[in-house]
Amino acid sequence: MAEQDFQNALQAWIARKGFVWGTSPEIYGGASGFYDYAPLGKLLKNKVENTIRDTFIQNNFWEMECPIVMPAKVWEASGHLGGFSDPLVRDVKGNVFRADNLIEEHLGKESVTLDGKEVKIDGASIEELLAIIEEYDIKAPNGQPLEPEIKNHNLMMQTTVGLDSVSYNRPETATTTYLPFIRYLSFFRDKLPFGVFQIGKAFRNEISPRQHLLRQREFTQAEGQLFLFKDQKQNYPAFESVKEEKLPLRYFDEKQKKYVNYNFSKGDAVTLEEAIKKKMLKNKAYAWTLALAYKLFINMGIPKEKIRLLQHEPEKRAFYAEDAWDIEIKLNTFGWTEVCGVHDRTDYDLTQHTKFSKKKLDAYNEETKQKETPHVLEIAFGTDRPTYALMDLFYAYDAEKKQDTFNVPKKMAPITAAVFPLVNKKELPEIAQKIYNDLKSAGIMTTYDASGSVGRRYARMDEIGTPYCITVDFDTIEKDDSVTLRDRDSTKQIRIKKDDVVASVKGLLDGSQTI
Amino acid sequence: MAEQDFQNALQAWIARKGFVWGTSPEIYGGASGFYDYAPLGKLLKNKVENTIRDTFIQNNFWEMECPIVMPAKVWEASGHLGGFSDPLVRDVKGNVFRADNLIEEHLGKESVTLDGKEVKIDGASIEELLAIIEEYDIKAPNGQPLEPEIKNHNLMMQTTVGLDSVSYNRPETATTTYLPFIRYLSFFRDKLPFGVFQIGKAFRNEISPRQHLLRQREFTQAEGQLFLFKDQKQNYPAFESVKEEKLPLRYFDEKQKKYVNYNFSKGDAVTLEEAIKKKMLKNKAYAWTLALAYKLFINMGIPKEKIRLLQHEPEKRAFYAEDAWDIEIKLNTFGWTEVCGVHDRTDYDLTQHTKFSKKKLDAYNEETKQKETPHVLEIAFGTDRPTYALMDLFYAYDAEKKQDTFNVPKKMAPITAAVFPLVNKKELPEIAQKIYNDLKSAGIMTTYDASGSVGRRYARMDEIGTPYCITVDFDTIEKDDSVTLRDRDSTKQIRIKKDDVVASVKGLLDGSQTI
Repeated sequence: MAEQDFQNALQAWIARKGFVWGTSPEIYGGASGFYDYAPLGKLLKNKVENTIRDTFIQNNFWEMECPIVMPAKVWEASGHLGGFSDPLVRDVKGNVFRADNLIEEHLGKESVTLDGKEVKIDGASIEELLAIIEEYDIKAPNGQPLEPEIKNHNLMMQTTVGLDSVSYNRPETATTTYLPFIRYLSFFRDKLPFGVFQIGKAFRNEISPRQHLLRQREFTQAEGQLFLFKDQKQNYPAFESVKEEKLPLRYFDEKQKKYVNYNFSKGDAVTLEEAIKKKMLKNKAYAWTLALAYKLFINMGIPKEKIRLLQHEPEKRAFYAEDAWDIEIKLNTFGWTEVCGVHDRTDYDLTQHTKFSKKKLDAYNEETKQKETPHVLEIAFGTDRPTYALMDLFYAYDAEKKQDTFNVPKKMAPITAAVFPLVNKKELPEIAQKIYNDLKSAGIMTTYDASGSVGRRYARMDEIGTPYCITVDFDTIEKDDSVTLRDRDSTKQIRIKKDDVVASVKGLLDGSQTI
Repeated sequence: MAEQDFQNALQAWIARKGFVWGTSPEIYGGASGFYDYAPLGKLLKNKVENTIRDTFIQNNFWEMECPIVMPAKVWEASGHLGGFSDPLVRDVKGNVFRADNLIEEHLGKESVTLDGKEVKIDGASIEELLAIIEEYDIKAPNGQPLEPEIKNHNLMMQTTVGLDSVSYNRPETATTTYLPFIRYLSFFRDKLPFGVFQIGKAFRNEISPRQHLLRQREFTQAEGQLFLFKDQKQNYPAFESVKEEKLPLRYFDEKQKKYVNYNFSKGDAVTLEEAIKKKMLKNKAYAWTLALAYKLFINMGIPKEKIRLLQHEPEKRAFYAEDAWDIEIKLNTFGWTEVCGVHDRTDYDLTQHTKFSKKKLDAYNEETKQKETPHVLEIAFGTDRPTYALMDLFYAYDAEKKQDTFNVPKKMAPITAAVFPLVNKKELPEIAQKIYNDLKSAGIMTTYDASGSVGRRYARMDEIGTPYCITVDFDTIEKDDSVTLRDRDSTKQIRIKKDDVVASVKGLLDGSQTI
């Protein structure tokens, strides 16, 4: 299928089968950048979020839930009030565009020569953008000339609390997670390192949201924060447990000024220990954090060969960031796509909030025998992109059967089992209902379907990725109390006792049984 | 303990042990009505929310996730833009108060005589409130006179999407859940009844938030919506499964104009079937919904004797509501407190949204052979109040031991197990770490504590309600591979094999084993 055809087929399937609807609210015309998670999409997103939660907990991170709405002072301290904005330009008809995107798309490149100097368009100043527009005669996509003015548009959604307290819907969870630092010290009994994470909504008023769930105005973040003293970065005992691991690193070699792939093929794979020796990774705590971030996506069921880790070029990092890598997933629809950033934020945030709150955010380091402002290593990502990635990577159109399929890893399937009575006669429906109730009571997401041919019912389940279908037929009541259990991937069917269905489905899911 | 002392002790324990911090952001002085769920509070809230999710799913409701930010048009249709406001009055110094609350507190009653007529203060018009203030010479609590002006203050938090699209942080999840009705029809293959629910944030800009988590400006709702045709209300097959159940009904007798308790004591308990016969409940679908709402709170571990169901007096219901009952929990700190409303919203919402969106929100009823606008029965509640209720009802101060205790039902405890090495010598820590890892890998929330005396460590766990403590001691390595397992409530200890710890904790939790 051609790329655009695939994208259309995928997005039609996503809406038609009840994964994601929108833009929302549809009956009022839809607001760009807002979506509804429909029943199957919500089940999938819950699986993604529960995997993240479990993985963080296994690695001794504790979950927080902080407010979405926070006063202006917080965002002044974090830098979002001053710097978190897009440069907007209007054409003479009043249409609004992001100036940097417009120039990039118009010229088809990421940097231009201006007064004999090479200027990166992304990150250029307002004056530079205006000069480029004039010099290169940039116009709106509709051919209209642009107004000679660019305004910075802050991406935060402002609101009011009480009668007049200016506040904002948070543009990220991270900042809200840093603020209770003094409380953490007491909760963790003054021992560093400690880790906290938060899964929750964030809001960015993008001027042109696009790419479906990938760039929304309202989205869910899942960010982990590891607080530690600077000297603990090289002295990080947990690193021992991951040092033999090999990650698909794409490292920026500062001497050669170019990217070098490691670990993509077996030939040049290096362990994390070697990566530190080769100075590809700066320290053990950062390497451990990067390995945890990678594990999050592996645990969600993203195939290894679809993931790579890409170091930021030094000049693209935030000014305070000591190191930064992205995790990218190779989507069928949009190619390599950033899904996570792992950032060494140093002591930047705690220092800023100390300055603005006048509360000392430091802790006693028993190693150095002094009070220090801890550093933060951050795993910053969202849950919408991995949810989209699972749909993008495992949806397919089976041209032979002329039907949609969704071969998502079985543990991630929105619905795990379906129960069918072959016909609505005799005791078949009662037995099927009982099996359905037993599976649900055992915490297995199950659906019941009694309409249409069994072939049609199997097809319905293949379309939404349900791994196991159980059919109650006449043999069940006339012969041996057995039912059929059908496997989604092999379409193989076996007969099992009706009282063994729950145990069999559990066994198949955890791998202790096979069909 | 005196009531105020208990409240102070409870709220100090909530903050000190890491359940809830705030008001948030604390280092910036805190914004009234906003709190952080700290690690233990977040674990407790997750248990509450997972119980709600499981209970809804067991009852065939499907989860949705709709945007928090929605355009003005939606709130115009729902009635929130016009009517969702509080009457505010200022004193001459500029302090702001809710006029109705101020009058009630000043007079110490809920209604007053005005021009010879009895007027309810809650719900009085602006003109009536001004007249009462003048007639009864109401002043601010500080003794200052009030300005002769009352303004309606809308409780929604307004924001902007794009450059100029007026939008609001939703004041409830319910409205956002109704909007995809046409999509639901297709997802549920045109069969009614069907149920959907949503767990998510909502925002109300209360002028005076109070009572800790009970009345916040940002809070989490969990609302279930049952869509059905009008004639299905009396013809509701699922009612059969609950008709023998007895609920603690406090029914408003319209003839006697007073409340009548049913089911509080065994003497006058009636089944739901009898309640329908006696016309205490209007129809079977509503009775089933009320039973489900009650079950939600029972499943969360709220003790039966602390719950009652209270019918709204007809004049207190929303004008469109056919019936409405509240669920109340008897808190130690605030007495009987509303935690849930079960509303027969009739076809009000779908009719409103049809009118404003110009999209026909109806469905074909096979029974009546015509297109009809379905009705909605709603279970409206939040997750903050039950989380608070669990802390309020199960926290206690043990005067004899001089320590806090938290005897929350074991399945709801934030942390299920704790593992201690008796001393940090020989292989004790390694064995304890392995048990800790095994428990966590089995999905059991576990903590590890190696500091202080074992008695101190038990006390720490009793303070936060951890049901099971496992101690590795010298017998473990020198004698028989056994460890001690201690029960929180009986403080009884048994010895079990170290390899049986995971199975024992699971068995104790699900009731298949006892100590």
